[in-house]
Amino acid sequence: MSITHKLATWLSEVDPLAEGRALELARNAVIDIVGCMIAGGKDVATCRTLDAVRDLGSGPASIVGHTEMLTAPHAALVNGTAAHALDFDDNYHGNMGHATAVLVPALLALGEERGLGGRAVLDAYIAGLEALLVIGKGVGLSHYEKGWHTTSTIGTIGAAAAAARLMQLDLPGVQRAMSLGFSHASGSKLQFGNMAKPFHAGMSAKNGLMSARYANAGLTAVEEPLDKPWGFRDLYIGFDKSPGYEDNIENIGMPLAIERYGLKVKIHPDCASTHCAVDGLLCLISEHGLEEHDIDTVEVVVNKISYDNLMFPNPVSEMEARFSMEYAIALAITRGQLRIADFRSEVIADENVRSWFPRIKMLQSSPEAPLPAAENGREPAKVIIHTKDGRGLEIFKQRARGVLQNPLTDDEMWAKFDDCIENAGMEVQASEIRAYLEAFETVDHVGELMNLLRKSP
Amino acid sequence: MSITHKLATWLSEVDPLAEGRALELARNAVIDIVGCMIAGGKDVATCRTLDAVRDLGSGPASIVGHTEMLTAPHAALVNGTAAHALDFDDNYHGNMGHATAVLVPALLALGEERGLGGRAVLDAYIAGLEALLVIGKGVGLSHYEKGWHTTSTIGTIGAAAAAARLMQLDLPGVQRAMSLGFSHASGSKLQFGNMAKPFHAGMSAKNGLMSARYANAGLTAVEEPLDKPWGFRDLYIGFDKSPGYEDNIENIGMPLAIERYGLKVKIHPDCASTHCAVDGLLCLISEHGLEEHDIDTVEVVVNKISYDNLMFPNPVSEMEARFSMEYAIALAITRGQLRIADFRSEVIADENVRSWFPRIKMLQSSPEAPLPAAENGREPAKVIIHTKDGRGLEIFKQRARGVLQNPLTDDEMWAKFDDCIENAGMEVQASEIRAYLEAFETVDHVGELMNLLRKSP
Repeated sequence: MSITHKLATWLSEVDPLAEGRALELARNAVIDIVGCMIAGGKDVATCRTLDAVRDLGSGPASIVGHTEMLTAPHAALVNGTAAHALDFDDNYHGNMGHATAVLVPALLALGEERGLGGRAVLDAYIAGLEALLVIGKGVGLSHYEKGWHTTSTIGTIGAAAAAARLMQLDLPGVQRAMSLGFSHASGSKLQFGNMAKPFHAGMSAKNGLMSARYANAGLTAVEEPLDKPWGFRDLYIGFDKSPGYEDNIENIGMPLAIERYGLKVKIHPDCASTHCAVDGLLCLISEHGLEEHDIDTVEVVVNKISYDNLMFPNPVSEMEARFSMEYAIALAITRGQLRIADFRSEVIADENVRSWFPRIKMLQSSPEAPLPAAENGREPAKVIIHTKDGRGLEIFKQRARGVLQNPLTDDEMWAKFDDCIENAGMEVQASEIRAYLEAFETVDHVGELMNLLRKSP
Repeated sequence: MSITHKLATWLSEVDPLAEGRALELARNAVIDIVGCMIAGGKDVATCRTLDAVRDLGSGPASIVGHTEMLTAPHAALVNGTAAHALDFDDNYHGNMGHATAVLVPALLALGEERGLGGRAVLDAYIAGLEALLVIGKGVGLSHYEKGWHTTSTIGTIGAAAAAARLMQLDLPGVQRAMSLGFSHASGSKLQFGNMAKPFHAGMSAKNGLMSARYANAGLTAVEEPLDKPWGFRDLYIGFDKSPGYEDNIENIGMPLAIERYGLKVKIHPDCASTHCAVDGLLCLISEHGLEEHDIDTVEVVVNKISYDNLMFPNPVSEMEARFSMEYAIALAITRGQLRIADFRSEVIADENVRSWFPRIKMLQSSPEAPLPAAENGREPAKVIIHTKDGRGLEIFKQRARGVLQNPLTDDEMWAKFDDCIENAGMEVQASEIRAYLEAFETVDHVGELMNLLRKSP
């Protein structure tokens, strides 16, 4: 039995997945991504994407933070772009990129279009994560390192699989959906720093959803798109440079990927490479009861992968500030946390914040003795605070808050959600939205939630 | 100045291109592809693609051979699939694949949506061919050989460029359109033999058109998507395995690619690898006044590239018959030509046609001494007819009828068109459609033509 056949068999035949621990984790992921969609709804990348499709027909699916209702594929496109616009959405071990920003906007749009309930969306989401794991680990990290934007390449096929599950396609239908997802797989990391980056999440959500639609209409496509010569693994990385799908297909769903790896939820609205350092700094401040005026200088040690991502010691724009260790640490010292509003231009220009930049030093660990890496802990940090009274306080953080092994508390999760709501000025609907999300699996028709996420005209 | 910047400069600033010889060639290409869209409109791949988008909103753009009017991107999708459904549409040197089936459906849909005229569509088409040449020759034949379906990978970026030209985007707008086209570039030859293959032409037409829309809405994207690390050339083949863009960018438009290379129009509705052999056979028959009963056996010698494509000595389906030298030669002997209807199952089952298969032998030229290749003549053939009276009649054909160096006569062009019309049962509108096409550059609003291409409800 071929890889795709096995995967499609599981996707089309496995019992309902939204139960117990998996349900809980999936619901939290939906809460997180709905917050991100709300926060990113008015981002310029989202608005321009919406501008490009607004005249292409209204439909049954809500655009978050706007008054429009468009067709489901266009809602997936715009809401997916919104979900990733602030880069505040989760990362996932399986596809070595962002996952929920692709899967959930597609599934919510499809669910709203077809009158489906919350539990079915959660089920398809959990299934989609499983597909992302098999496909992503099959091509491996080299696929990412080669330059592919895994959020959209792997994401498109995963979204096709998830949408096919939600549409209850049969085995050959799921297979066709993934094959047509493969036909749409695209996106390069060269777009990082441009609006095209968050757009890629929306593009994949839309193309995954469309692939399931084409499959449902009976469009035929090659049965084994993943593992043949000229297939996904061969074309997008090469057989000799990738681990292959076997490991993850054999034990698919045992345990479920969402239970085994979880999502890497972000508590800070900036590049994940800063997160262990910020968490460590806040720990030291809290443990030692430090005030801003107690601190003289801060040193942060990170591995090369994090160091290379954080290119802006003197950020002058929102984009640069999100990729600046100095900015993240300065915010943590002066404000005690990183909120969405802290990345607006007036804060970036704040003299007090900027005065900290020369007193913060980011160092790269030596290549011979890097900081240890761990599952869901590939970007650890060591933080040393030098106090004005001469102490050197040190801490090591392996994993950022928000990963499975170091999860957010409910309070932290909802605090992030409230920050997203506030950024969008949607406080009026907040408690009603929250009530729907808290019991998402009991929602009969996800359209009821989506209705609330629109701006009233 | 970067490659993309140079290309976008030319695309946004060059004087109108639809003049003289280029105009004439472009108009012929439009005539040919409109015929192909008509013939392929009811193909099952086209119908299923239409089924998948029919409920996603009506719009201002006509679906050829159907009653529907959909949004322009969906018309590009369905009509592009129709154009390539029978594999009867032209090939092009520039992108080493099908070109007009991607460009023209996108441009006609856009033109119909925006009330544009025939000359503007021809201008954008000629510009799109130029972009395809620069991009295609930059990645080179290795890109095709690696497994990429060049019709859709290169085609998507070319369609984005052509649509941007038709939308009269400024230089940065054209640049963004091509960059977003790059973000959508996908499609593998692994889909050959499936409906996904013609679908790829429609997908590229749609995605190219959408890329120009996103660009027009101001979505930002990397300025140099073609030639940077992680860009098109690097990701889709590798710098060390490709010739680079320099040769064709330096002299872009001098002469125009359409004048320099033309299109490779098909006169026979099957795999191009059979065409030189069929043409050669028909020449011999005509020169020597042969009848079917004069012929004993036929030998055909072709190079490996053609030999490998023609896998079905005993075809039993339409798809197999299109990739069978034996079938093509048997039709030419028994019917004197290859028409669309000759690939229906009743003809494939015809005892007289099939009785010829054992008497037709396809041979591969020796690897040491292949038949010579030439520009627009990469698949030559040698044909030897052994007559019952003991003669051995031989002919060599370098280039198939339909290429620039061996063009169709007007009669042949319109005979093909009539065959397409007949296949669709659209004889009623035929003369009016033809009148529009013959003076396509004078059509004020291409929507008038597109209206005629729909089926009356």
